[in-house]
Amino acid sequence: MRCEVVAIGTELLLGQIMDTNSAWIGEQLALAGIDSHFQVKVGDNFERMEAAMRQGLERSDAVICCGGLGPTQDDITREVIARIMGVELERDEAIVARIRAMFESRGRVMTDNNKRQADIPLGASPIAEMPGTAPGLVCPLGDKVIYAVPGVPREMKEMMAGTILPDLQRRSGETAVIRSRVIRTWGHSESGLAEMLAPRIDELDGTGNPTLAFQASGIEGLKIRITAKAGDEAAAEEIIAAEEALVRAVLGDVVFGVDEETMEVVILKRLKALGLTLAVAEELTGGVLTSRLTEIEGAEAAFKGALISPPANAGHSDGAAAEPAEKRAIAEAARARDTLGADIGIAAIRPSRDEGHPNGMVFLGIVTSIGGHDGARDGAEHLDSVALPGDKTRLRNYAVISLLNYLRKVLGE
Amino acid sequence: MRCEVVAIGTELLLGQIMDTNSAWIGEQLALAGIDSHFQVKVGDNFERMEAAMRQGLERSDAVICCGGLGPTQDDITREVIARIMGVELERDEAIVARIRAMFESRGRVMTDNNKRQADIPLGASPIAEMPGTAPGLVCPLGDKVIYAVPGVPREMKEMMAGTILPDLQRRSGETAVIRSRVIRTWGHSESGLAEMLAPRIDELDGTGNPTLAFQASGIEGLKIRITAKAGDEAAAEEIIAAEEALVRAVLGDVVFGVDEETMEVVILKRLKALGLTLAVAEELTGGVLTSRLTEIEGAEAAFKGALISPPANAGHSDGAAAEPAEKRAIAEAARARDTLGADIGIAAIRPSRDEGHPNGMVFLGIVTSIGGHDGARDGAEHLDSVALPGDKTRLRNYAVISLLNYLRKVLGE
Repeated sequence: MRCEVVAIGTELLLGQIMDTNSAWIGEQLALAGIDSHFQVKVGDNFERMEAAMRQGLERSDAVICCGGLGPTQDDITREVIARIMGVELERDEAIVARIRAMFESRGRVMTDNNKRQADIPLGASPIAEMPGTAPGLVCPLGDKVIYAVPGVPREMKEMMAGTILPDLQRRSGETAVIRSRVIRTWGHSESGLAEMLAPRIDELDGTGNPTLAFQASGIEGLKIRITAKAGDEAAAEEIIAAEEALVRAVLGDVVFGVDEETMEVVILKRLKALGLTLAVAEELTGGVLTSRLTEIEGAEAAFKGALISPPANAGHSDGAAAEPAEKRAIAEAARARDTLGADIGIAAIRPSRDEGHPNGMVFLGIVTSIGGHDGARDGAEHLDSVALPGDKTRLRNYAVISLLNYLRKVLGE
Repeated sequence: MRCEVVAIGTELLLGQIMDTNSAWIGEQLALAGIDSHFQVKVGDNFERMEAAMRQGLERSDAVICCGGLGPTQDDITREVIARIMGVELERDEAIVARIRAMFESRGRVMTDNNKRQADIPLGASPIAEMPGTAPGLVCPLGDKVIYAVPGVPREMKEMMAGTILPDLQRRSGETAVIRSRVIRTWGHSESGLAEMLAPRIDELDGTGNPTLAFQASGIEGLKIRITAKAGDEAAAEEIIAAEEALVRAVLGDVVFGVDEETMEVVILKRLKALGLTLAVAEELTGGVLTSRLTEIEGAEAAFKGALISPPANAGHSDGAAAEPAEKRAIAEAARARDTLGADIGIAAIRPSRDEGHPNGMVFLGIVTSIGGHDGARDGAEHLDSVALPGDKTRLRNYAVISLLNYLRKVLGE
């Protein structure tokens, strides 16, 4: 079973609006076990819309058209589908009444333009879910089908969930369940991970189930997605759990989390488990570290706050620093810990130019407390360095994750 | 001149990554006067990539392929283009050396996989800009052309600006110059702005030059894009300047900046012009305000730092606060100003639940200094309130911009 997505709207091609619908629909199709090989954006143009839909019907069993169902003259998805079906449009008075009621409930008057939204190609049926003024359509063409949904994400999603996905699954006869899990890593390049996992990927290529796929996600790390197909949910989860164990055994401690567990989530969870609190010095990172930590619900249980010095000291300064960056990383970490009364202080520090380090070098300092909860780590100083990529924005963000990842390793399992 | 965009990557179809590149490329093409009628997403599959590129070449004069230039076995854009050109791939040793140098500068070792990235179809040329390890390609096919760029947005953008857009404009023979300027506003809804500008838009509809378009951009505000076409740059700029003056006259002080001038840039510029310094209290905003301000080069001249209290106080607390939120907004602003020795302190405060304010209400406090640089504002306290949208992330971000916008108004022109 294959389904293409045709996103309609000149403003999508011009980049004035981001087409987020296709990606969401693609994810839903994948989870329902339906292949989507092509997704196309096309402007509000009759011939080009017709060409895109016809090609979709040739290559696939179903086409989902997103957009062009509004009340204006630009909105011609209904007309294009009628042409492809070889039928006329007929005004559906029941839909007119629903649209009118919707306007009245908002204290507005329906314009004549809005009646156009009730024009349905003969042989097509309106989709039952209709959260806005644009009805969705199911348009059968022999054993194939075109679905039309509005471009408003909320309306589209309701129609997908309520009508289109069930209809597609019924048509496909697919009973398998597809589930996936994302393994998050930090510290290796994509090619490095690919080499480590190459033997396992070769093994899996024979069966095709489960599959492993890589995804570079910038400061979110490199992700490995495990996808499994099985007769029911429990069986799919079992395949995934077994594969996760294999992947973790190969990759070791570059794995920091799964699915939605960001580095911040993992660090806060670990601190809470150990009963430790954290303070940060943000000379280089300028509030980015704090804003990421405080974004997590319940961060206050483990996060005591930050020192944000005047950013004059951030980045390469041309003048000589009083102390080398290695010493400052430890001193700032200790100052944050002591000023804010935390168990642990951390700091990322960029050396001044005259210290002679390569551009992009950043020192990471971690200082724990005497009298902390774990005797082995009491009062220890930890220093590491990383070479980070170029511009200020990236350097700050990479410094944040590198520092948190270093803390993760210092805290241990 | 027509140019299609083919975004490559199974993860795009599966919705694991949002294809933001096509929209950005579409916008750049439009500004360069080049039509883009179709944009296609296709997975990492040889036949389907080939079909998409061949169809692009049939319908258009140029195809920009985005993605599939990485080091893994999935990355086959080079191979597909070589097939379409009917040529072999040849390893470019100069590129191998550049990739190796890039790895070494980051203290890493290049793997054998990465050498694949230096394989170039015979007759194609690598793009001069190469900010990552994936070289871009210019691949001529008769009087048409395929460009290949990496999927990493930063790398793609550098290659588009440096090589592809100039090459496309040269090929198109387009001599008209198209320029645009974005007018940034904060404080009115899209329909409100549209109503204010409706008479002017009606007038412009006759000529089609310049044009006005709206773009809702969340916490970046509502943007109005003026686009003008003329024989040369100076004439285009003149049309834009005249239109900007008209738009500003209609909209008044909801306009805060143009083009890349974010609210932070505008605030820092204004503070420097007045010779004033700023400190912020980040109880509610948790570092987001500081991270935005410190992102701007030279922020240290006007930004003295932040107080980041333990975030226990952030958001609705169920217990009774010692003081009502109105008082705390002023008190926190004063505490930031005094602790950090700044001329001005600002704070956004969310009331506790038992204060009886509607959900989403945030108080904005601004306190200036006695003995500041402008007698009229010395030592004044300013309090305002805003009703902000729902979840924590949005509320924090909207609070930051609302507070800065309030400061902008307090500082005056």
